[in-house]
Amino acid sequence: MGFEIDTASLLDRLARLGAVGAIPGGGCARLALTDEDRAGRDLVVGWMRDLGLSVGTDAIGNVVAVRAGTADVEPVMIGSHIDTVRTGGRYDGNLGVLAGLELCAALDRADMRTRRPIAVAFFTNEEGARFQPDMLGSLVYVGGMQLAEAHAARSIDGKTLGEELARIGYLGDRVPGFVRPHAFVELHIEQGPILEAEGLTIGAVTGVQGISWAEYVFSGVSNHAGTTPMRLRRDAGYAAMAVASGIRDLVRRFGGDQVGTVGRIELVPNLINVVASRATFTVDLRNTDEAILRRAEAEAASLIERICGEERIGVEKRVLARFEPVEFSEGIVDLVAACAAARGLSSRRMPSGAGHDAQMFARICPTGMIFVPSAKGLSHNVAEHTDPADIDAGAKVLRDVVLELAA
Amino acid sequence: MGFEIDTASLLDRLARLGAVGAIPGGGCARLALTDEDRAGRDLVVGWMRDLGLSVGTDAIGNVVAVRAGTADVEPVMIGSHIDTVRTGGRYDGNLGVLAGLELCAALDRADMRTRRPIAVAFFTNEEGARFQPDMLGSLVYVGGMQLAEAHAARSIDGKTLGEELARIGYLGDRVPGFVRPHAFVELHIEQGPILEAEGLTIGAVTGVQGISWAEYVFSGVSNHAGTTPMRLRRDAGYAAMAVASGIRDLVRRFGGDQVGTVGRIELVPNLINVVASRATFTVDLRNTDEAILRRAEAEAASLIERICGEERIGVEKRVLARFEPVEFSEGIVDLVAACAAARGLSSRRMPSGAGHDAQMFARICPTGMIFVPSAKGLSHNVAEHTDPADIDAGAKVLRDVVLELAA
Repeated sequence: MGFEIDTASLLDRLARLGAVGAIPGGGCARLALTDEDRAGRDLVVGWMRDLGLSVGTDAIGNVVAVRAGTADVEPVMIGSHIDTVRTGGRYDGNLGVLAGLELCAALDRADMRTRRPIAVAFFTNEEGARFQPDMLGSLVYVGGMQLAEAHAARSIDGKTLGEELARIGYLGDRVPGFVRPHAFVELHIEQGPILEAEGLTIGAVTGVQGISWAEYVFSGVSNHAGTTPMRLRRDAGYAAMAVASGIRDLVRRFGGDQVGTVGRIELVPNLINVVASRATFTVDLRNTDEAILRRAEAEAASLIERICGEERIGVEKRVLARFEPVEFSEGIVDLVAACAAARGLSSRRMPSGAGHDAQMFARICPTGMIFVPSAKGLSHNVAEHTDPADIDAGAKVLRDVVLELAA
Repeated sequence: MGFEIDTASLLDRLARLGAVGAIPGGGCARLALTDEDRAGRDLVVGWMRDLGLSVGTDAIGNVVAVRAGTADVEPVMIGSHIDTVRTGGRYDGNLGVLAGLELCAALDRADMRTRRPIAVAFFTNEEGARFQPDMLGSLVYVGGMQLAEAHAARSIDGKTLGEELARIGYLGDRVPGFVRPHAFVELHIEQGPILEAEGLTIGAVTGVQGISWAEYVFSGVSNHAGTTPMRLRRDAGYAAMAVASGIRDLVRRFGGDQVGTVGRIELVPNLINVVASRATFTVDLRNTDEAILRRAEAEAASLIERICGEERIGVEKRVLARFEPVEFSEGIVDLVAACAAARGLSSRRMPSGAGHDAQMFARICPTGMIFVPSAKGLSHNVAEHTDPADIDAGAKVLRDVVLELAA
């Protein structure tokens, strides 16, 4: 099988998709099911049709395009997402989908049929930046969430996911899961600094961190910032910010793989001279070890209880997402490492710090991921960048892994 | 002088002004120079005209209405403000202005002329909730700020104060300071819990806390909340919230009259799974002792330097307001206490925790303030309330103090 993926064409597709919802600095804003997301979907679906793939859209907006094999068996699925965060880059998600299309194009040029069909898919709302939970489309696809519940998910701008799907024309007629994969492979940028720091090209991903997302609404009493003695205050803003500061201390104490972030906060009335009556904020905790992640959640809970007790603050908690750590197929992890070695590419086994659609498929079929380096580890950032040589390497390893699984 | 102020009429005016820009819960939202503020100004100016007062508006939107005396000398000025914070009450500021109008009405009914003229005034943007600094109108009126600089002040919604003045029709033709007072008296709600807690009716205000307002913009690096090891983060949101939490610790350590508040914060991009690249927040520090206030500012500065150094955060600081503590005229403080005693009203000497227009007039003439209790100490809150009996007491003491000063 001497043919190769056309990396120049892959880079061109990445640039053309990156131009949809482009924002200053070279980034993208295609929040799930917005007009920008629709435009990105239309572009990619057009490419799928141009390649003669049979394209289906399911009732949660997931799109699966199949290239027939010589045998009528379950396909090897290549999948990722094309939605972005509000200040996203052009590689996160997009690379895995478009590399899959380039593999189909390369097979066409070589006039080659694999034994198993090859499916290329993108899944709805992977980022979780507009609807919660993140990875919602793939979660529904593998049967982890009911369709009705998913359709009722509310966006940060107050719309339901169901109405937004219909509005942009991606409320499809297929049942989620309509193409059941024999195996699932996702090529993705690392979104972290490790490969670059160690001068490596390929990450053979062993699994995904567990993720715990919660939103808190703290209720205190709004009051005059000059005349209210400190001891009489019930400052929801102070309490929320003290919790955010405490979360960092907790994470520092835990060390190891533990990470924690308070990325969002809003105060009411949010004025310089008024004690805040309400604070809404989120806590993002992740660890590769479920037991340690549970301990971090427990310590965060008692931190919140203590601070809110002292400040006499009311607390409402909403769990936005909770996924246990995932382990990928040993066989596929080995295959990724072997394919990298066969091409003389340096690699290492590593867990993923981010959530990915692949972790959902690990529930229903052998699954693996291939990482390529992210410059400076930047992602969810307009400066997100991966070197063309690394994109080339990742696409070639994807090709080799998929051809092996499809044989 | 047996006549009295008509407290029922005063309560009626408070209710009618409170209906302008009314918000749920019985509060008001009349941010300076908004359409709601214009409507409130129009109502009060109409009342001034109905009372036959000679009304003038200066180039910063301050309105001064004069009732002639028997002698052509400097008037005794009664002044306060009618703008509110976004979640304000109906007494803060309004009480002092409307009580002044009721005194004029009472003098008319008694067909009485004071020797000195009596001026009733309201000043632009006292709250500082839409433009900084707070007390801007009275600051310009006493010559503490240049007109051009004040007109260039930018609102939180991006307009200049000059264009907003013109837009609502209150860019007047008089020169700020056009009516120079012999003495200045302001009746105001305490906006704090002390009078109620001690079961007292009248506060003879000895002075005003020093106020230090600053806005900080922290700059870090936006990044993925799952894949970025803690040690590599430059989280502007964490740094800002750690500072807010540290400000509370600092204030607790200082004790005494020291208060400190972080009432406003905004993160960019403000998403659950993205490390914030930018945080904008404010710090409000107040103390009755200038030396201690300076120490608090210095400790806040080193706190910010330490945290931003550790997190490698860039810092921009903008001073939004800085006023030293103010001492009122001993003579007027004594007069307020004496007038309260003469009516058998309980009182105490006390500093003001909030900034007031009166503190600006203390620079140019003998000045004093009269406080009445705030229920539960609530202010800058829709639940702000003062008992009608206390409003009656405050208006009567204002009457007695002003008649004495105008004799």
